[in-house]
Parts: sequence; structure tokens; C-alpha cells
Amino acid sequence: MKMITTVQAANLLLAQDNILILCHRSPDGDTVGSAHALFYALKALGKSSAVQCADSLPKDLRQILGNVEYDSFVPSFIVAVDVADTKLLGTLEEKYGSCIDLCLDHHPSNRLFAEHVCLDGDAAATAEIVFDIIVAMGVELSAQIATCVYLALTTDTGCFKYQSTSAKTLETAAKVVAAGAPNGKINQLIFETKSKSRVALENHVLSDLRYYLDDHCAVIVVPLALLKKYDVTDEEMNGISGIPRQIEGVDVAVTIREQDNETCRISLRTTEAVNASEICAVFDGGGHARAAGCTIAGTIEQAEKLLVGEISKRYC
Amino acid sequence: MKMITTVQAANLLLAQDNILILCHRSPDGDTVGSAHALFYALKALGKSSAVQCADSLPKDLRQILGNVEYDSFVPSFIVAVDVADTKLLGTLEEKYGSCIDLCLDHHPSNRLFAEHVCLDGDAAATAEIVFDIIVAMGVELSAQIATCVYLALTTDTGCFKYQSTSAKTLETAAKVVAAGAPNGKINQLIFETKSKSRVALENHVLSDLRYYLDDHCAVIVVPLALLKKYDVTDEEMNGISGIPRQIEGVDVAVTIREQDNETCRISLRTTEAVNASEICAVFDGGGHARAAGCTIAGTIEQAEKLLVGEISKRYC
Repeated sequence: MKMITTVQAANLLLAQDNILILCHRSPDGDTVGSAHALFYALKALGKSSAVQCADSLPKDLRQILGNVEYDSFVPSFIVAVDVADTKLLGTLEEKYGSCIDLCLDHHPSNRLFAEHVCLDGDAAATAEIVFDIIVAMGVELSAQIATCVYLALTTDTGCFKYQSTSAKTLETAAKVVAAGAPNGKINQLIFETKSKSRVALENHVLSDLRYYLDDHCAVIVVPLALLKKYDVTDEEMNGISGIPRQIEGVDVAVTIREQDNETCRISLRTTEAVNASEICAVFDGGGHARAAGCTIAGTIEQAEKLLVGEISKRYC
Repeated sequence: MKMITTVQAANLLLAQDNILILCHRSPDGDTVGSAHALFYALKALGKSSAVQCADSLPKDLRQILGNVEYDSFVPSFIVAVDVADTKLLGTLEEKYGSCIDLCLDHHPSNRLFAEHVCLDGDAAATAEIVFDIIVAMGVELSAQIATCVYLALTTDTGCFKYQSTSAKTLETAAKVVAAGAPNGKINQLIFETKSKSRVALENHVLSDLRYYLDDHCAVIVVPLALLKKYDVTDEEMNGISGIPRQIEGVDVAVTIREQDNETCRISLRTTEAVNASEICAVFDGGGHARAAGCTIAGTIEQAEKLLVGEISKRYC
């Protein structure tokens, strides 16, 4: 494993062809946008490239990307984008997990599984790193590349709202908007569109909001039965963890989503009062100090009890 | 009346002292942030200055501004900031309406009432114009100035989400964040802070969401009794009309707030399918094509029936 700079990553990519780009499972705007920005940049350089993801892309991301035509080839160089751990490759892990040539990422918790790692833990999105690499490769910013970078930046920062948004994030956004990214349209699709059933489910979930630690911890739970009742897809649930975080005085916002009868997926959003990543690490999860996730074996009630216990230990 | 550039406005201000800056009534982040950015810039140049507004500032804006100490002086130059019409000066109109020396604004509808007008209808916020003037005056960006500019930009663009956000808006934001504006903290206060009671009330209101016209019209109603029940102030209800607008397929989002037993305040948000301003005009209200308001005499049920009737007539 070798840590490299964006310029070194650019030079490494310039020397390659037949480049396969991998996203993480449960794909979000950053992994998808970053991967496709890189894909279009490599295409502009005349290289063969393709993007793969274990799971299908959410509807809104597909709508923004439009039709993408990947090349067919035997990969000779494999890049993982926004992937902190090989297990996040999902079903692609078995085939590619041990042969990633380059990983581009912004998660400080990256497991450094790739041969070359270009990591910037201060970047608000992996797209900031990918943008620098594209510029370093000498590729002109097309509207397509700009759109992909913008999509990644805006989704990973909640439209530049999160603490992680730096001057550099905004500067990069300014450059891609100048290059033709339809920022208003993308934001409308990502942040201002909820299905009727999602609104109904959100309402149901909110009516069961649970407070702990003198109201400094708020927990929302999403049982599988609810998704069925309201006919809401898992994908439509994106952003639900932002709700308890907004409540005044709440330092730890917990979202528990029942995955099947035996496991729950957990999302934690915290203020400076608690380190989300530390709590999720107890359950073999990871992420950032203010936003992290993990999976807990057990029912919703069991997961809730375990989590609140760990949070209580760390909250003073 | 003379239209001037930002450089001309800078030179005009550099030649003045004892400068009074006026905000519009019902102050928002743009008028308050722009006015205070200019205030701190003039202070840095050794000039006497003060800001005045007809109405008191909302709690979140006061929290971000902190304590501000204005100078006492007899004004010799009066600047209106983000004020499109003298009537928007509220109770300050009578005293200052006819003697505004300079107006800095981004509303294309500006009534050009000032002696000098520096107007940019493409700016997403008046703060973009004020920022250029501050730079043109040669004032170094202090963290205080940067904070005020950021506050103005982020509030007027819904945290850079609206269509109006340009590459220049984002570039200006990048510069003020680099100069020390605490963007994460400001966004948290403005966009991510809801009181526990607001969340509870919102949930109650959503559980009573009403659909009309094959789900193309969504109505939420806020009876006075609910505000009392959840102990929510009118100010805390800001943004509630954004909720029905987000629902997929909804072209007309209606919010009916009971004002007293005899009148309701109406807010309409629409897509291109219907003109909000035309519908509100029927009830002597007004606004923009996509966002308008009016007051209807009657109970919530009466107002709802009248509105849905008018909307049905115009919706095809």
C-alpha cells in the first residue's frame, strides 16, 4: 500500500487503459458522481473505461446521469471510488476486493486495502479529490463531468449545508457550475422531491420519535413492516436520518432501519458533543466524527438499547 | 436617479461619512447580513455608521450577528440594502423614504427610488453586490464581514439550493468561508434547527395533509389551537409551506394558517402548471408566479373550499 497525491494519481491513471471504476454498494451521489466524472474524463483521454456497482442506482441519480454507455474490456486497472472498505463493494468484493489498484476516498476510516491510496480526510466529498485528479490529467471540464462532480458534492454535503463543507468544496462547486452543471435542477431532484408515500411514512416515523438523555439523543426507527405498509422502497428513505438531527438540543440523532428480522442498519448524526464514528466502531461500523453508520444483529429494540447504552457512556 | 456600478458605489461610499444603512421590514438574512457586512467594512475604513430596521431581528439572525455597537451621528448619507420599494422600509419610510442616497439591490422589480441605484437582477442575493463593493473599497475581509456576507448568501439561496445560485454566488461563498465565516454553524442555526415543539406540530399538521385534484394539489392547515397546544410561535412556523411543495406530482401546495376566528393567511407554492399570483389576486393578494400569498375572511374550511375552487378552475 502506498499513499499518493492527486497529481501522482493523475499520472498513474494517464499511464493506464481499460480502467474499471467501482462504486460502493447502496450507491449515493458521491460514489456515483465521482466514478462517472472520472469515467468521462478517461473517455475524453481516449481510454476504455466502465463503472460498476453491486447495487442498482437510485432513480434520481439515474435521472441526472442519463444514459451512460460503458466500454467492454478486460480490466487492467481497477479504481475504487469513495469505498472505505472492500466489504462495501458488496457482491463485487469477492471478484475485485483483493486487486484494487487505486482507491480514491475521503473517509478517514479507509482500510487502506488498495495498492495505491489517494485519501483526503478533509475533503467533504470524494469528488473534490476526483476533480483535482481530472484537472491534473489536463482534461477540459465538459458539462457532463461538471454535472457528475456537482451531483457528488451536493449530495455528500446536504447541498453545502454540513460542517464538512470547506472553502475548497464551494470553490470546486463554483467551477463546475461555471462549466455547465445544472445545479438548480439537480438540487430540485435530490432535495426537493419526495413521494407521497415517503411523506406518509415520514409522518408515521416522526410520530414515534424517541428521546433519551434528557432529550439530547433522539431516535427514529423504521420497521420493515412500515416500508411495506406505505409501499416505500429502501431508496426512498434516503435523508430520513437528517430529521432527528434538526431538533434543537439534540446532540445524537439515531436512525434504526430494520434490514431483516435479524439485523438493523444504524445511522448516527452527532454534534461536537459525541464522536459518531467511535460509537459505530463498537459495532464494527465506521464513518466520520459527525456522521457514521453500522449494522447491529438483533431486533430494533435490542439495537436501540445497545446504542443508547454506548451513547450514554460517551455523552457527558 | 442614476444607475451605477459596484466600483462607482464603492467610490461614492469612500467619499462619505456618517452613513446610515437601512434594511427592509420583516428582515431576512440577506437584508441584515448585507447591511452589517457593509457596516463593518465602513467601520474598518474609520467611518461612523449604523444599521436600522423597522422590525426587530429574528432570534437566529441575532444569534449569528452577536452584539453590534452602532455609532451615534446625524446621518449625512443613507443607504438602503435589499429594499425594492420604499414601502418595504416599514415605519422608517416616512422619515427616510424620500432621501435615500444609494440603494443596493438584486430585485428586478426595484422601484428605483434612490438617487443612486446599484442593481444586479442576476445576483442571487444583495450580498453578492455588497461583497464586490467591499472588495472595491479595498477593505480586508474580516471574519465578521465574511460571516455577514455568508449569512446573506445562504439564507437567500436556501443554502445554495435555489435555481438563482450561480457560479459567482458559490465563488463568493468560497471566499467568505476562506476568510473565516463559520458556514457549518450558520447553516445549522438557519436550516437545521427546529424546536422539539415545532417538530411535534409539523408532525400533527402532516398527519392531516389533504390532497385534491388527483393529488396534484396538497393542502396543509395550521389551526390556531395547534400553535397553542404545542406552544409554537409564529416565527417558528417559517418554512412550513415548503413541505407540501416537495411532494412528487404536487403542482399546487397550499398552506392555510388560521390568524384569528375570522381570517386565514394563505401561502401558495406552485409549479409551472398554475400561476400562484393569479389565484391569490382573486383574494386581493399577490406575489410571484410560483409563490404568492393572500388573506381570506372565514374559517379554515371556508378558505379551503374557496381556494380549491379557484385552483380547480385554473388547473388543466
